[in-house]
Amino acid sequence: MARVVRGTPRTPLEIVDGLAELGVATVHEAQGRIGLLNVRLRPIFPAKIAGTALTAEVAPGDNWSIHVAVEQAQPGDILVVTPTSPCEDGYLGDLLADSLLAHGVRGLVIDAGVRDVATLTEMGFPVWSKNIGAQGTVKFTPGNVQTPIVIAEQLVNPGDVIVADIDGVVVVRREDAEAVLAKGREREANETAKRERLRAGELGLDIYGMRDKLAAAGLVYVDYRPEDNAG
Amino acid sequence: MARVVRGTPRTPLEIVDGLAELGVATVHEAQGRIGLLNVRLRPIFPAKIAGTALTAEVAPGDNWSIHVAVEQAQPGDILVVTPTSPCEDGYLGDLLADSLLAHGVRGLVIDAGVRDVATLTEMGFPVWSKNIGAQGTVKFTPGNVQTPIVIAEQLVNPGDVIVADIDGVVVVRREDAEAVLAKGREREANETAKRERLRAGELGLDIYGMRDKLAAAGLVYVDYRPEDNAG
Amino acid sequence: MARVVRGTPRTPLEIVDGLAELGVATVHEAQGRIGLLNVRLRPIFPAKIAGTALTAEVAPGDNWSIHVAVEQAQPGDILVVTPTSPCEDGYLGDLLADSLLAHGVRGLVIDAGVRDVATLTEMGFPVWSKNIGAQGTVKFTPGNVQTPIVIAEQLVNPGDVIVADIDGVVVVRREDAEAVLAKGREREANETAKRERLRAGELGLDIYGMRDKLAAAGLVYVDYRPEDNAG
Amino acid sequence: MARVVRGTPRTPLEIVDGLAELGVATVHEAQGRIGLLNVRLRPIFPAKIAGTALTAEVAPGDNWSIHVAVEQAQPGDILVVTPTSPCEDGYLGDLLADSLLAHGVRGLVIDAGVRDVATLTEMGFPVWSKNIGAQGTVKFTPGNVQTPIVIAEQLVNPGDVIVADIDGVVVVRREDAEAVLAKGREREANETAKRERLRAGELGLDIYGMRDKLAAAGLVYVDYRPEDNAG
Amino acid sequence: MARVVRGTPRTPLEIVDGLAELGVATVHEAQGRIGLLNVRLRPIFPAKIAGTALTAEVAPGDNWSIHVAVEQAQPGDILVVTPTSPCEDGYLGDLLADSLLAHGVRGLVIDAGVRDVATLTEMGFPVWSKNIGAQGTVKFTPGNVQTPIVIAEQLVNPGDVIVADIDGVVVVRREDAEAVLAKGREREANETAKRERLRAGELGLDIYGMRDKLAAAGLVYVDYRPEDNAG
Amino acid sequence: MARVVRGTPRTPLEIVDGLAELGVATVHEAQGRIGLLNVRLRPIFPAKIAGTALTAEVAPGDNWSIHVAVEQAQPGDILVVTPTSPCEDGYLGDLLADSLLAHGVRGLVIDAGVRDVATLTEMGFPVWSKNIGAQGTVKFTPGNVQTPIVIAEQLVNPGDVIVADIDGVVVVRREDAEAVLAKGREREANETAKRERLRAGELGLDIYGMRDKLAAAGLVYVDYRPEDNAG
Repeated sequence: MARVVRGTPRTPLEIVDGLAELGVATVHEAQGRIGLLNVRLRPIFPAKIAGTALTAEVAPGDNWSIHVAVEQAQPGDILVVTPTSPCEDGYLGDLLADSLLAHGVRGLVIDAGVRDVATLTEMGFPVWSKNIGAQGTVKFTPGNVQTPIVIAEQLVNPGDVIVADIDGVVVVRREDAEAVLAKGREREANETAKRERLRAGELGLDIYGMRDKLAAAGLVYVDYRPEDNAG
Repeated sequence: MARVVRGTPRTPLEIVDGLAELGVATVHEAQGRIGLLNVRLRPIFPAKIAGTALTAEVAPGDNWSIHVAVEQAQPGDILVVTPTSPCEDGYLGDLLADSLLAHGVRGLVIDAGVRDVATLTEMGFPVWSKNIGAQGTVKFTPGNVQTPIVIAEQLVNPGDVIVADIDGVVVVRREDAEAVLAKGREREANETAKRERLRAGELGLDIYGMRDKLAAAGLVYVDYRPEDNAG
Repeated sequence: MARVVRGTPRTPLEIVDGLAELGVATVHEAQGRIGLLNVRLRPIFPAKIAGTALTAEVAPGDNWSIHVAVEQAQPGDILVVTPTSPCEDGYLGDLLADSLLAHGVRGLVIDAGVRDVATLTEMGFPVWSKNIGAQGTVKFTPGNVQTPIVIAEQLVNPGDVIVADIDGVVVVRREDAEAVLAKGREREANETAKRERLRAGELGLDIYGMRDKLAAAGLVYVDYRPEDNAG
Repeated sequence: MARVVRGTPRTPLEIVDGLAELGVATVHEAQGRIGLLNVRLRPIFPAKIAGTALTAEVAPGDNWSIHVAVEQAQPGDILVVTPTSPCEDGYLGDLLADSLLAHGVRGLVIDAGVRDVATLTEMGFPVWSKNIGAQGTVKFTPGNVQTPIVIAEQLVNPGDVIVADIDGVVVVRREDAEAVLAKGREREANETAKRERLRAGELGLDIYGMRDKLAAAGLVYVDYRPEDNAG
Repeated sequence: MARVVRGTPRTPLEIVDGLAELGVATVHEAQGRIGLLNVRLRPIFPAKIAGTALTAEVAPGDNWSIHVAVEQAQPGDILVVTPTSPCEDGYLGDLLADSLLAHGVRGLVIDAGVRDVATLTEMGFPVWSKNIGAQGTVKFTPGNVQTPIVIAEQLVNPGDVIVADIDGVVVVRREDAEAVLAKGREREANETAKRERLRAGELGLDIYGMRDKLAAAGLVYVDYRPEDNAG
Repeated sequence: MARVVRGTPRTPLEIVDGLAELGVATVHEAQGRIGLLNVRLRPIFPAKIAGTALTAEVAPGDNWSIHVAVEQAQPGDILVVTPTSPCEDGYLGDLLADSLLAHGVRGLVIDAGVRDVATLTEMGFPVWSKNIGAQGTVKFTPGNVQTPIVIAEQLVNPGDVIVADIDGVVVVRREDAEAVLAKGREREANETAKRERLRAGELGLDIYGMRDKLAAAGLVYVDYRPEDNAG
């Protein structure tokens, strides 16, 4: 038995859009280095987006619940799809992408395959997937839609924020999103100052005061002798 | 002992070229979702081609039979190379690509590595390979040329059609090629109509009449309660 | 206890720059098909560079020694980083890249992850890595800097030449660099002549005089019979 | 900042022990084919156990929180450890196993490496791990203990039931454990009857009444012709 | 549409049993180093068997055609199962093994997962699989039974000989089986003599007359100098 | 051109045998957590040995240099074989094992495949390999014997100590072996005392005085609330 949960809350889009600007690496740091999906999920073309998670579970080789999910979509969503056992099939192509775009969905994150990649690229429909592959799917087993799911080693609740760019994909809990946005902006402001100093040639060793700590941790400096090299 | 089979029949190029236009995903669907090579074969640059299979088996780390294969090439062929045990070496570089192009070969599909990728890209010689790698090969063990081979989980006969694009690689039996082309064109026509409706916001659930079947398969709709979310 | 070795010798940059022009595949062949790093290291954008190895070992999930390495950098270096056990974390982002560029470092080769890839691409800071990933790192365990290291199945000494392009990464011993450059240039000259003949349609079988050797190795030519094909 | 949550509820051990008897495959079926951890987790020796999850997150290459977790252990627990980014290091050896056994812990499930496997086997301390490896770890970064974690593609709450045998590892929610036990026992009873009939040579096609459904799904029976075979 | 082919010919069992005695490595050599299935297929317990291939294709996560295959079984068969796209699910457990044993099937070779491994081991039902995993399967999509299939990079026809032991799995064409048996026995006789000489300390270099060929291939002997070693 | 280096020094066997007793995990710790070969190398049966490295490089699919290496063997050696590019072929079987045993070789460590595993197990010839596989090899390309090699991410010099057991494989530099043996014995003595305390139920937190450090590192203890659990 599979469930579709209606009326799940979503993170407000002004927060979502702020997180999109920050990007994956900054958001991941801002929330304490958590929430990063496994690096096997890669974009089919470079893009930088954020959206509210519209979740769907699919059986291996069966994409029925993606059709179900479309009806639950709201503008600003990102469809997040995880198979109930590992699969490389191409769960989504250009037709479903058309349908998702028509309902305001900003992109797809899927721990499986995707196809019609040339068309998806032309359409500008961004996808992060485990692989590209044309293998078609059946429609026999519906899966849960808008329930909490585990995808690529992370828990995602419907309405959580998904931030995705060329560095990967990170999830931010709905409850944490506003605070993470604030911290991420702080962090970014901070980094600008540091970047200036680093570009001017100052060393991280000095900026961050690392020399004593390194010595305490056992780091020693020695001079080169020819026998140090390995044949 | 290795064999070169001369005079193998080929699929007519007008059929081949028709299949190229359809692309991998459509051809794969049109022939009943068979024939797709493993997704580990990826293009070195985006391209969309079809050709008749010119097959070659190679020993691990040994590309001698590729030289043998060139002589058997005819315009419209795609060279299809499989190692007799898994290997990542760079079996082909710019010189062999020059030679293949001079004999009308349209591209390469290889379940191993390829090198000189910058030059191949400049030349416009498309390759689908397991990896990119510069490791050179020897010439001691000839392999079969123009015999049936298994590559990336599929059987390929000489003269079968190979269709390859950014979605991957699919093989179509010579005997089936004409029928697959017809079905693929039908499918494409069909999809155009559906795309219009989906773009207009109609749901796949309604277009394909899925609602009753989903209910019969046990799908239920429930309303969100805060405790549904996972911490 | 970790060591930083100061005053390690480097290959002269005029040799290094000559090797950059030749590229990975040619250099690898010129030195007898050795020195190629495992194909899992891939560029984040197409580039073709060479530099002198500035080596650093890092603990899993800990990038402290990269900060230490920056101070040892000299113009023309490529930073070469290997983890002491396999790791996918993003050891370096835009800030460290700024710092490395400010000290004349030409790029990064790392058997782990890298992040801020969009910014690194805009900056034109080339990276060859095992993966892209945003996972942040800590600073508790310094690793050796400018000692011989093993990375991606190859030994690299500080000051050795690293050549990297879209085909991968190859290391050339400092002691061998001049000779390899000479041989590589010879090889390239040689290839130009051969390419002309191959482009004109001459067969490698004839140019390299392979026909007798192939027959001696057991290659036979047979004519096609319909039963040769596989259903 | 890391948290240790004290006083988490646990599934009663009589239910846990009932689930252990059923084993992974039956429990997984009984709860509707959910909860199975990724197949990369394998036992270091054949064993069949169940216990209440004592959860710990570890940083890559850092096993500090395992020491923290021991203090939270209660008899009947299974320690469940997940790294915050993928790692192969040997997080636990014979000393920690001694400590865990002394506190009544029944085994370890870890999405990383384990070492001292010969001694663990002699001690009869069962482990399911991603790999075996001797690489030592540091103690700088504490991780969460007794919080919900994601491990090997599944969500595990403290106190949930972990069932593990040679088929793998499955998690059962604390809330569902009693019902799953009942269903599992039913299923087992059911299977015994079926096994008798299957052993007697009766066909599943007949026992399950599949023939009409197969015909409806398009299955046809044809007679062999020699040309059906593939060369 | 899926097909069941009835009346496919089988290799005589006295040949099959002879090949079982020789084992995988010898059979593979005797037929010219072909036919070896990919090394990812491993036994669930040590066994050494041969049988005639009873082939079945399965959809990802769907084991319906295994039920269909049982009816086609004859004593001496080995069931050979390949998914139409890569899958790790547990396609077969103890019930199906009971059924297969009841019809004289000697074992299973599957490029996917298997479960109930403890019971299968007790029953002595040998399996070579890609992985062990408890994930259950559905019954919606029948696949071809007793047609030629590709499994783990090899083509297998119904009735071909499958030889499987701890070294892996090899397929021998029905047409070649008698000749391969004869060559395998010769090879074995040959090896016995050689083993005696090697056990007595004679060198392969001398027995096989390799010294001149090695010199011709460029092998040189040098004396150790301390600087030859690598730091 | 390939080289055989004669007269390389070896670590004295009384040191080697002492290291064997300590085992991989202890030796790895005793030398500062270095020298561990990649975890992909696994034993074909449980064994615990040490020996002096007899090194050989092999071309992919070519085992010629193993024959060359046998002549250089001395009692107490372990043959250490690395391919010049990744390969899964079965480089060694029972005949070569007979030959190696006749010359006093204690076992094999190979970053590739091995075959005749049933016979090797009966003979008691221990092997650590990347995989088991029957694929045969040719003899065209000799590789270096008794030169420094890189295998599975580690540098090995001829005469270094190889320690191998069920935890994996570690290399100890010849120059360091005596000191590592001493430290390893100390460590072992130390651990015995600690094991007693841990077995008695004392906590590592107390034995190692970790509580203050954990608090300083930010660890906090909180009490469970039902909303802490994840649905």
